[in-house]
Amino acid sequence: MPFSYTLQATSGKARAGKICTNHGEILTPVFMPVGTLGTVKAMSPHELIETSAQIILGNTYHLYMRPGHELIRKAGGLHKFINWQRPMLTDSGGFQVMSLAALRKITKDGVKFRSHIDGSLHYFTPESVMEIQEALGADIIMSFDECPSYPATRDYVEKSLRTTLRWAEKGLRAFKNHENQALFGIVQGGIYDDLREKSALALMDMDFPGYSIGGLAVGEEKDDMFRLTEFLNDILPADKPRYLMGVGTPSDLLKNVANGVDMFDCVMPTRNARKGSIFTRHGKMIIKAARYKEDFNPIDPECSCYACTHFSRAYIRHLITMNEILGMRLATIHSLHFYQELMNMARTAILENRYQEFLDSMLPVLDRIVD
Amino acid sequence: MPFSYTLQATSGKARAGKICTNHGEILTPVFMPVGTLGTVKAMSPHELIETSAQIILGNTYHLYMRPGHELIRKAGGLHKFINWQRPMLTDSGGFQVMSLAALRKITKDGVKFRSHIDGSLHYFTPESVMEIQEALGADIIMSFDECPSYPATRDYVEKSLRTTLRWAEKGLRAFKNHENQALFGIVQGGIYDDLREKSALALMDMDFPGYSIGGLAVGEEKDDMFRLTEFLNDILPADKPRYLMGVGTPSDLLKNVANGVDMFDCVMPTRNARKGSIFTRHGKMIIKAARYKEDFNPIDPECSCYACTHFSRAYIRHLITMNEILGMRLATIHSLHFYQELMNMARTAILENRYQEFLDSMLPVLDRIVD
Repeated sequence: MPFSYTLQATSGKARAGKICTNHGEILTPVFMPVGTLGTVKAMSPHELIETSAQIILGNTYHLYMRPGHELIRKAGGLHKFINWQRPMLTDSGGFQVMSLAALRKITKDGVKFRSHIDGSLHYFTPESVMEIQEALGADIIMSFDECPSYPATRDYVEKSLRTTLRWAEKGLRAFKNHENQALFGIVQGGIYDDLREKSALALMDMDFPGYSIGGLAVGEEKDDMFRLTEFLNDILPADKPRYLMGVGTPSDLLKNVANGVDMFDCVMPTRNARKGSIFTRHGKMIIKAARYKEDFNPIDPECSCYACTHFSRAYIRHLITMNEILGMRLATIHSLHFYQELMNMARTAILENRYQEFLDSMLPVLDRIVD
Repeated sequence: MPFSYTLQATSGKARAGKICTNHGEILTPVFMPVGTLGTVKAMSPHELIETSAQIILGNTYHLYMRPGHELIRKAGGLHKFINWQRPMLTDSGGFQVMSLAALRKITKDGVKFRSHIDGSLHYFTPESVMEIQEALGADIIMSFDECPSYPATRDYVEKSLRTTLRWAEKGLRAFKNHENQALFGIVQGGIYDDLREKSALALMDMDFPGYSIGGLAVGEEKDDMFRLTEFLNDILPADKPRYLMGVGTPSDLLKNVANGVDMFDCVMPTRNARKGSIFTRHGKMIIKAARYKEDFNPIDPECSCYACTHFSRAYIRHLITMNEILGMRLATIHSLHFYQELMNMARTAILENRYQEFLDSMLPVLDRIVD
């Protein structure tokens, strides 16, 4: 088995750990930048490494659509196609089928849907999603899930969960590439604690090497998210990594680390940066604001990233205002660097058993707008 | 005088030389990537250096509009604002006033025009353009010129030339920053040999440290351009650099080097690359072409640029097709690297006095589409 997780330390419910894969180690808690179409938008692999990214994500739905998993198989897999040597994770496509595809029709065996690009007809099954992800070749892959949109009735979520659990079993049976990939099960169940518990216990019976928490950050109240991650992490086994899918802001990350989450991914640091909303240790910097027009300080004078050690707020503001690619690049570099630094600070605080103190010191500033 | 030009070798009329500035040396013939708004589009300064760029260009008109030359003055000049340590050149704004501005009204003292961005009213004079370029602080700056559009009547060009020569004198008198900047005069005169000669001789009387050839590559026949550069370079002094503004394709560069041109700038390698038209030593590669879909070779297997040493045609095709920033970056890196390599090859051929042979070997492939 090429995949392993070692719990190294806890501080309250927060966990520091180490994941081993064929492409190297991942120290947790970890934030995974999102490379939807085989590129973390605006970044080169070299720059991602400079931000200390340990693992990046590819989206199965998007890569299946374009350039196609068979092309990536021919290229020797996603690592080789995009020239990324470190670990990689692909999602199941379930969330994208829910949020992007048109006219989706869910049966017990899979989902028929129309492409968001050209309206062409496609069919995802638990087995086909395994095949796609095996072609992509990420180190960590996901079971195909039916991801309910929010809000959803309890009846819908209950029925959807039965589907997801059936698909998890079918995916597990279809999955063969144990030497190179680890398959995670995805806990669903909407905002219903008992359904979430049922989902977690059923997946634990199937004994996945890691567990994802899906179907959150889809519009529910933040309190529901935090309640559910704490609730679920009390159920999920301590010797397996827990991955909260699609989350979130810096404070979301820290609060969920406090609840025992190990892995995160989100487009926020990259997407927001390209629009000029830059995450810093002092809060969000809206770089287009007039106050930065003649501000020749770096985004964060204490930051060691390429953007902060070479360029001023005034220059980055000018570039972002002019829609210049370099502006998007510099803002992205800083935000990703900050996310990695935040996770590294969280890990250190856990190892030194002072996570709550760290959390209390960080939370008051992270959500504010820098002024 | 911080600026000097040394003619090092000739091969036919082709010249190898060395320009010295306060920000370092420039070996000629040289291609200068265009950084319109204070950034060579999609590139970082570090990447530009990796392509072997010796000097880059900023556009006076654009930088005056946004972010404004006073802001750049406060930043400590354009070098510091954009973090570029090597030599830099700014143009006069004359070409942009002709091609971009609305409702321009030319008087003997300057041009009133409306901004292409917001319609606001502006007034450029030979003196104000000196002041703007002194605020920007490039090593090489240009006299303000009236650049006739093409086609233009001989009467118009003759009158325009009188204006440009008057402005050259006024600019020269207004220019004070001799310790840090070298002011070039711009030869105008349309496609009329006698007017071009008159322009060159009048500027030579004013004794500029270098001469630009403006008003070409504006729609005239290529034969007119080549005839005029050869004609003018027989007139212009051998001990001063000659800069052909806004040119051009790889074959345009090589043919004009044969005619004695030392310096070039053009948006083609950067602009075309972002659209997927990539310049290579084997011709233009239209990377979106279906034939590259499963082509896992680099753009040019013999090229040492970051794009060619790390990524395949299939991947770059995918990125460009998806409008991904990394695709534009990689295509730009290759095209700029190739332009620099081409100029370096030309220089070596001149130093070894085999330029015509080199030209004959390169021309048959440069303009074709790679297949």
